[in-house]
Amino acid sequence: MPTATQAAHAARRDALRATFAARDVPAALITRLLNVRYLTGFTGSNGLLLVRADGADVLVTDGRYRDQAAAQTEGVEIVIERPLLGPVDGWLTAGNIGRLGVETHVLTLDERAALPAEVETVSLDRAVEKLRYTKDETELDLIRTACAMSARALEGLFETRLGGRTEREIARDLESRMYAEGAEALAFDTIVASGPNSAIPHHSPTDRVVERGDFLKIDFGARHTGYHADCTRTVVVGAAPAAWQQELHDLVRTAQQAGREALKPGAELSAVDAAARDLITAAGHGGEFTHGLGHGVGLEIHEDPFFAANATGTLADRTPVTVEPGIYLPGRGGVRIEDTLVVRDGEPELLTPTTKDLVVLD
Amino acid sequence: MPTATQAAHAARRDALRATFAARDVPAALITRLLNVRYLTGFTGSNGLLLVRADGADVLVTDGRYRDQAAAQTEGVEIVIERPLLGPVDGWLTAGNIGRLGVETHVLTLDERAALPAEVETVSLDRAVEKLRYTKDETELDLIRTACAMSARALEGLFETRLGGRTEREIARDLESRMYAEGAEALAFDTIVASGPNSAIPHHSPTDRVVERGDFLKIDFGARHTGYHADCTRTVVVGAAPAAWQQELHDLVRTAQQAGREALKPGAELSAVDAAARDLITAAGHGGEFTHGLGHGVGLEIHEDPFFAANATGTLADRTPVTVEPGIYLPGRGGVRIEDTLVVRDGEPELLTPTTKDLVVLD
Repeated sequence: MPTATQAAHAARRDALRATFAARDVPAALITRLLNVRYLTGFTGSNGLLLVRADGADVLVTDGRYRDQAAAQTEGVEIVIERPLLGPVDGWLTAGNIGRLGVETHVLTLDERAALPAEVETVSLDRAVEKLRYTKDETELDLIRTACAMSARALEGLFETRLGGRTEREIARDLESRMYAEGAEALAFDTIVASGPNSAIPHHSPTDRVVERGDFLKIDFGARHTGYHADCTRTVVVGAAPAAWQQELHDLVRTAQQAGREALKPGAELSAVDAAARDLITAAGHGGEFTHGLGHGVGLEIHEDPFFAANATGTLADRTPVTVEPGIYLPGRGGVRIEDTLVVRDGEPELLTPTTKDLVVLD
Repeated sequence: MPTATQAAHAARRDALRATFAARDVPAALITRLLNVRYLTGFTGSNGLLLVRADGADVLVTDGRYRDQAAAQTEGVEIVIERPLLGPVDGWLTAGNIGRLGVETHVLTLDERAALPAEVETVSLDRAVEKLRYTKDETELDLIRTACAMSARALEGLFETRLGGRTEREIARDLESRMYAEGAEALAFDTIVASGPNSAIPHHSPTDRVVERGDFLKIDFGARHTGYHADCTRTVVVGAAPAAWQQELHDLVRTAQQAGREALKPGAELSAVDAAARDLITAAGHGGEFTHGLGHGVGLEIHEDPFFAANATGTLADRTPVTVEPGIYLPGRGGVRIEDTLVVRDGEPELLTPTTKDLVVLD
């Protein structure tokens, strides 16, 4: 009997199959490895998947992954061959497949040339990415766990002394804590930005020592079973915040709350962005909020949907997203506050519960 | 005046340009980001490069990288536009370019469709990867530094107590030491495999505690300015090696030395593999040496050339490679010994100097 996770993979392949009729294709070739993983559970570094209208789906990988592919998948024939595209020609002929759905956003010209010239390729138009937009409960559990690991790591870090350490040391400490919580990897390169460096939106940690009165902005996350967490907090170190620090933080916090409150199934992506941005613009800092309000999170750290002033489209239920306004005053300092949340009917579900107060840490 | 590094980038673009006549193309579109970096020095996460026969090369990137692209490159016009392929159409028309060299191993069908249909695309046949095969001194310096950081980190680790710690703890300790030595990133996921786990060639560190008498196999490396180091050592923990451990290690070490001695400009790749493999096969362990002897190292951790029994081609001067035979006895334990070396006229240059004795550590 398949596990719940394997049943989820089968349901995802069926959802892809359901798009075949409109494209008039009897099969689709999935060559984006992340999408192969999404549709089968296979996590090896080399593989492709043929999804067929008749349900006889085939995963091709190489000999290194023979046992792993068998253990991770269910309801998919496994073929070991190198190069991966080798057997496809024969299948298309045997299956009398004259039109084939392909991932034109990743299929290379060389890969196309390895397919029979007489087979017509039809763009799947990011069909798997579109399925991935709304998460199933299996996926939400993984993202929830990744966020919980991240939050515990940050709260552990906040109990240590931060003043006098370098940005790099603090980043490594936080990363060790995420691994200790069970992270399989970092979701992305950790950002630890202190004092004037906090005004750089994507700052790489340096040997700058954190000083009394500094803003300290930390943007980080753990990866768990392929799924990502994303969280940012900005604190002050060693002294009560200066008035300008408190004002800036209050404004970003208010904007972030407005962005969170705008998360509803059916909301326009541009309207979510505007809910936070308009407050920042009205306070005279619009030019210093230099990025979109947030993004989807899943098997990729940044994936659809993206909140931006010029974004088109609407939000769906069960979509994990970040809400992360920031204001950056060059040479002085900056604040970003970011949560990962799941869009739900009613209130969104907050996955990154660490306080958003402007706390003062040692 | 361009820096030495910028002069190296210009020389690389000229070397690519020198291949245009044989392909009858007046320009080449480089869309593989790693190759854009190699040809210009630009390290942003989004960019493409048009290399033109007349030398008027253009880098396209987006607004995030305006300052960075200007600071990192020399002799290349910088255009800020999104999507990146947007301006290419106009250039091809203005330049009367009817044939365009493209990287068919990375260019997607969607990207091809964004180029004018009437322009004929011609495969560059991995021209930039072929240039990257032999390194210039700028690159060798970076790989040398990455290896030196790695070796210092390992030697520091070897001064600590290893018995009683988990594989995962040891991996994180070694990684912290690489960062402390100045690594910008890990070259790849660190392998720490103890006792029976050492028989798994690419084992992910677990919570298994290292016990007295265990083999401990560590495969790791630092990344420095984009360039990689790769090194493996196998030691014994807490007790003098058992006879079978010493025998296995002696055999791998002898085979590794034979492999290193086979590194000469002009040597057949299959002959280098055989130099080590034949010794292992003669000793009855051929079936337990389950991978190729080694690979090139550079901007990728694994790149051409690859040493394997069925490899074709020959070695060139100034090519950094690994030599890494291993023997894996399932359920019992395994040994791998790996150096990164530069193929040179005369002796190869050894970049990973840590002792290859079977040392006993606490």
